[in-house]
Amino acid sequence: MELIFEGYQPDKNALEESLFHTANGYIGIRACPEEGQVQGIPSIRGTYMNAFYDIKPIRYGEKLYGFPETQQGIVNLTDVQTIRLFIEEEQFLPSSQGEVLGYRRSLDMKFGFAERFIHWRSPKGQEVEISIRRMASLLVPELFCLQYAVKALNFSGKICFESIVLGDVSNYADASDPRVAAEKLRHLVVENVRMDEQSGLIESRTVTSNLKLAAAVSYLPPHDFKLQMDGAADSLTAKADGNILQGENLVFTLFAAFADSRRHDNPASKARQTVRDALLNGVAFYEKAQREILDEFWENSRVLVKSDEALQNSLDYSLYSLYCSCGRDEVSSIAAKGLSGEGYEGHYFWDTEIYIFPFFLLTDRQRAKNLLSFRYSILPQAREHARIMGHPCGALYPWRTISGSECSGYFPSGSAQYHLSADISHAFMQYYLATEDIDFMAQKGAEVLVETARLFLDAGHWYEGKFRIDAVTGPDEYSCIVDNNFYTNAGAQDTLRNAVIITRMLIEQGKAEAVFRKTGISSSELEQFLQAADQMYLPYDEKLMIHAQDDAFLKLAKLDLQSIPPDKYPLLLHYHPLWLYRHQVCKQADTVLAHFLYEDLADIETMRRSYEYYESCTTHDSSLSRCVFSIMASKLGEMDKALDYFRHSATMDIDDAHGNTKDGIHTANMGGSYLAIVAGFAGLRIKASGLHLAPRIPAELEGYEFPFKYLNSRLYITVDHSSCHIRLTGGPAVQIAVYNRSLQIGSEESIDIVIQR
Amino acid sequence: MELIFEGYQPDKNALEESLFHTANGYIGIRACPEEGQVQGIPSIRGTYMNAFYDIKPIRYGEKLYGFPETQQGIVNLTDVQTIRLFIEEEQFLPSSQGEVLGYRRSLDMKFGFAERFIHWRSPKGQEVEISIRRMASLLVPELFCLQYAVKALNFSGKICFESIVLGDVSNYADASDPRVAAEKLRHLVVENVRMDEQSGLIESRTVTSNLKLAAAVSYLPPHDFKLQMDGAADSLTAKADGNILQGENLVFTLFAAFADSRRHDNPASKARQTVRDALLNGVAFYEKAQREILDEFWENSRVLVKSDEALQNSLDYSLYSLYCSCGRDEVSSIAAKGLSGEGYEGHYFWDTEIYIFPFFLLTDRQRAKNLLSFRYSILPQAREHARIMGHPCGALYPWRTISGSECSGYFPSGSAQYHLSADISHAFMQYYLATEDIDFMAQKGAEVLVETARLFLDAGHWYEGKFRIDAVTGPDEYSCIVDNNFYTNAGAQDTLRNAVIITRMLIEQGKAEAVFRKTGISSSELEQFLQAADQMYLPYDEKLMIHAQDDAFLKLAKLDLQSIPPDKYPLLLHYHPLWLYRHQVCKQADTVLAHFLYEDLADIETMRRSYEYYESCTTHDSSLSRCVFSIMASKLGEMDKALDYFRHSATMDIDDAHGNTKDGIHTANMGGSYLAIVAGFAGLRIKASGLHLAPRIPAELEGYEFPFKYLNSRLYITVDHSSCHIRLTGGPAVQIAVYNRSLQIGSEESIDIVIQR
Repeated sequence: MELIFEGYQPDKNALEESLFHTANGYIGIRACPEEGQVQGIPSIRGTYMNAFYDIKPIRYGEKLYGFPETQQGIVNLTDVQTIRLFIEEEQFLPSSQGEVLGYRRSLDMKFGFAERFIHWRSPKGQEVEISIRRMASLLVPELFCLQYAVKALNFSGKICFESIVLGDVSNYADASDPRVAAEKLRHLVVENVRMDEQSGLIESRTVTSNLKLAAAVSYLPPHDFKLQMDGAADSLTAKADGNILQGENLVFTLFAAFADSRRHDNPASKARQTVRDALLNGVAFYEKAQREILDEFWENSRVLVKSDEALQNSLDYSLYSLYCSCGRDEVSSIAAKGLSGEGYEGHYFWDTEIYIFPFFLLTDRQRAKNLLSFRYSILPQAREHARIMGHPCGALYPWRTISGSECSGYFPSGSAQYHLSADISHAFMQYYLATEDIDFMAQKGAEVLVETARLFLDAGHWYEGKFRIDAVTGPDEYSCIVDNNFYTNAGAQDTLRNAVIITRMLIEQGKAEAVFRKTGISSSELEQFLQAADQMYLPYDEKLMIHAQDDAFLKLAKLDLQSIPPDKYPLLLHYHPLWLYRHQVCKQADTVLAHFLYEDLADIETMRRSYEYYESCTTHDSSLSRCVFSIMASKLGEMDKALDYFRHSATMDIDDAHGNTKDGIHTANMGGSYLAIVAGFAGLRIKASGLHLAPRIPAELEGYEFPFKYLNSRLYITVDHSSCHIRLTGGPAVQIAVYNRSLQIGSEESIDIVIQR
Repeated sequence: MELIFEGYQPDKNALEESLFHTANGYIGIRACPEEGQVQGIPSIRGTYMNAFYDIKPIRYGEKLYGFPETQQGIVNLTDVQTIRLFIEEEQFLPSSQGEVLGYRRSLDMKFGFAERFIHWRSPKGQEVEISIRRMASLLVPELFCLQYAVKALNFSGKICFESIVLGDVSNYADASDPRVAAEKLRHLVVENVRMDEQSGLIESRTVTSNLKLAAAVSYLPPHDFKLQMDGAADSLTAKADGNILQGENLVFTLFAAFADSRRHDNPASKARQTVRDALLNGVAFYEKAQREILDEFWENSRVLVKSDEALQNSLDYSLYSLYCSCGRDEVSSIAAKGLSGEGYEGHYFWDTEIYIFPFFLLTDRQRAKNLLSFRYSILPQAREHARIMGHPCGALYPWRTISGSECSGYFPSGSAQYHLSADISHAFMQYYLATEDIDFMAQKGAEVLVETARLFLDAGHWYEGKFRIDAVTGPDEYSCIVDNNFYTNAGAQDTLRNAVIITRMLIEQGKAEAVFRKTGISSSELEQFLQAADQMYLPYDEKLMIHAQDDAFLKLAKLDLQSIPPDKYPLLLHYHPLWLYRHQVCKQADTVLAHFLYEDLADIETMRRSYEYYESCTTHDSSLSRCVFSIMASKLGEMDKALDYFRHSATMDIDDAHGNTKDGIHTANMGGSYLAIVAGFAGLRIKASGLHLAPRIPAELEGYEFPFKYLNSRLYITVDHSSCHIRLTGGPAVQIAVYNRSLQIGSEESIDIVIQR
């Protein structure tokens, strides 16, 4: 369970910084070179904290009514990762001095640390082996440990470690790429720098959002090394001088702790206490805890794909990254890039609910619940957003946000994506179906369902007996502001129905008090929800016998994707949006995704035709696309394709297939890779009718297996080419429909089913 | 022929600055108080030059491919209009000191000057009558004259005139209004200040576009007054001290000249020479020329509406303003606000071709031709723009521009308005039909027609035997990025056909060499043009029996305009665009305009139903709307409505009906007011079949009359309730179809026709 990159490739540095970042859901530190930023080597030096943001203005060429004036953005924090090494006064600068004789980056996913190994010969001929280990503690989320080990191979002499802690940091910017911030702005202002003999503290405040951050450091120098601390207006330096003997391996340890005012009353005291505790506990204490926590994580979550080591490794990397990216509290969620980079500015999108949430729902209930509670916490802002968008009632979730305000600066592929509100409602309902946690629905879920249902009822209108929703954008951003997007209308239908189902269930159980009080929902309104849901217009093309992506899509000009030169992908970077909107071309799965999420809306042959049609016009320019095609290929029994799409999806970041992993990993795609097996190969669905499985297996794989939770039980599924073995590893008996045949598995029992082709 | 505002209303100052501005097509000076800017009095101090621009960045929340990075904007020029008056050392500051006993602003449209009259009593009791006359010379376009006359009513004593010429100027900004610039930026940098005893010169350069501007001044102080010039780094002062006797009227004259490097090799020398000439010639010389030029203008252009003095006055104001706004060369056109303000940043839109061009075509051929030549001059940029927008061939005119680059910062209601290219082609064809100037078409027109036709052929596509154009925006900006906008498709059809007609005509006449050489047009391409035109899809609703504004419009949610509170208009300032896009609501005439321009596409009953349908959902939030409804009301014989819409349209600026005339006059609406009579009441059309008239008259008017040119003849039409009198006042006999009956009018002849109801 290790990701390993061999060889020194400075030009791939920024990519490696993302891939080997260390995070724990609260903080994330890119794997930037300890020796510091070097001119000419691509690098995005960054440290981030989930949901810790500043606010900056959004500028417009022409600002129309309701365009958000400001945007939240993740903040690059105090930089603690610079450690300069001097050997006999020669600085270790592998990119410009001496010679790199060996180089390896690795991420150990069992033990939870990243390592950088360099075998280096200095200009004067001293050879050292440097191993730097980094860990973001899963036990103490504020804590980051860095152990800098140096082994003298062919000399004895003086060495010096110099840690520099920089408070003067700014965010990365690239004006040419719409997917990252356009303007370099300083967001963090240092307010206080303090130190004692073994530790230091930098307190800062964000410029506009006025959030406090404390970054504390403490050090364990090698024995007999003298530590000398020095402070400046916005930085700290810690120097440790001493001698190394040939063959000796010395370790300089840095503990850093980050604490913020969104979670802590006194961030400075929290950060300082954390690094002081760390000095007392020592690294081994946190390493042990790290291992234990990960053992449990893997036990609950690990998906095995047999006999394809590369795939297995990619999949491990995906699940590990999801775990380390997922917020640990109700103020945070999972950013599009996790905590690994600044792409999409640390915003939360629908990625969470549709691509990532199912993983946590099936493996880690508390995190799943946190993710929903986060959405519940920003319901007031979603209501406000709905008002701005012209709806007198209901809640419209912001397309991209950190703490609830709409942060999209281009509404046609931003606020117009009304489907997000349905996606969130869908996640709430999935949670309920998987847990039967009616109390959570009474407290939070019902309110979200009712408010989002109201939104759709107001956004749509009746026309010739059908309920239509115009001028929205579906998941496919290559067709914006369309009428009756199938995905959106299907989601709206689902939301409207579920709002009714849950509210009525609460009424029956005498638990409806909160939802009545908070929403004032009436039975006539519920009736309206149902009518709109029942008569929801779902565009269908009689000739092609498929659902149309929207009213216009199938009439647009066709585009031969083969005729477009490879260097013109992703199209969004080479074609004006209008040109894209004018053609039958999709950035990602849209109708195909609807067929996955709302599979009972169409028969299998319609889905097959739809799959084939949309596959021919989808570029997969979005990282959220291929995994969905994989899932649906499985559903259609196209297992070669399913595997092919899954492979693309699972290896996307490691292969840097989209060329932008330097800006951060693609967490939605990672969730999608998980789903490609669990919902795809294994056909797992959680529906009102219960748990469903329909396992299939690609010819190229020997088998796959995974654990999951359902209601109060734990199950483990093992699939090979002959059978599917389902074992109940904990909890009471459960009912499962396998290939639509209902089976019961008793406590500690297992069953075997012959695999269908 | 005078516009008069009586009474001192400082809160209306900015409005009056627009209305009483003085312009001549080259320069325009807002009627700002000579005593200078006063805190608390709304004012937009501005002096502008047609097509003189700077370049500034356009910022985006999310910048996608092809979004323009910069924008041209009209520049506020060196401010020459400050003249302080001191009476016995007390400064004339009517807003804060002393007492205003009488106040009048007037614009004399026969003599071509604006006047500000103030009867003022100083705090110490001296009474003066001040009359300030301003004139932008129609003879010498660089020249602006200001005569500051003071009459001492009840005292004799010292007075002093102090002229201040400011080079440090910046543009106006209002971040809250999408129709004016959002950022206050400095665009002009002073490079040189020079002076001698009687004149001064400030040379400047624009910051980014690097255009040179020279502003020169010279003075004629009252006899016996001592003139003292003083210069600073970026300003000039001229002081004239002397004595005034009770009853005496003294005049201090300022000549200012502006010259730029887009028109002049040596702007400084041109400006200086101009003000020196002026000193020699004296004001009377220019006043006489002004009168003569205007006499000719009115003779060729004046429209009389009988027995409604207010309407007559408004109409005079409209035509006068058009004349003073219209560029005098091929580098300039007519900005949306003329030269009266900074609204829409001095950009040229479709306003020119569809609303204003017909006025010049019928009254002033040279200006009409200039306007087309300007469009021809920016054809290379239109080709480039087409490439950016994804078209491998053809030309797409920029929605808003000064010298050819696309300046719109919100493409859904900017670049997406492909109809502009059809509008321009339409104007070229109208020019040809009205003049039969085939040489102009050979040199310029055919190339524009072919290139715009190519654009539409590439933008559209074939579907089920019809040619469709998707993802464009029609004139109605409350429905953006729509499929098969009727107006656009009709315009595309017209363009495609006219490109073929003109090219084939040139071939027949042996004049096609230039168009072949410049466009490489082939006969098979012409055939494709024709096929697309013949099979152009023009959306039609079988149930309503009207043309649909676009594929989706008639299925959108209906909106009861009565239910919207009056303070929510214009809707664009109070509703998010998505909400507008989702409803059947129009900012302006769209399909109704198509029925005017392309009237042979529908029968009269279809037009009537269409008119009624769209009238019920049009807010007229655009100033370009009512005039079109007036024209079409006339066509349908709804003369009361026609008059009503015409009245709204004609008085819009004088009444400040849209509340934003402070940012400049609405030139398109002024052209539309002209058309409401000429094309509306009189039913004048110029078509391939010749000249058409169908005069009608509203009950409330006694009559109307106007001159116009057609082919090589001049005609004069007089309409009252009994007859339409058509006189050929010059040139050879012409054929006219009146009420579709063809008549010939011989040289110097006239005919009378009974008016139809």
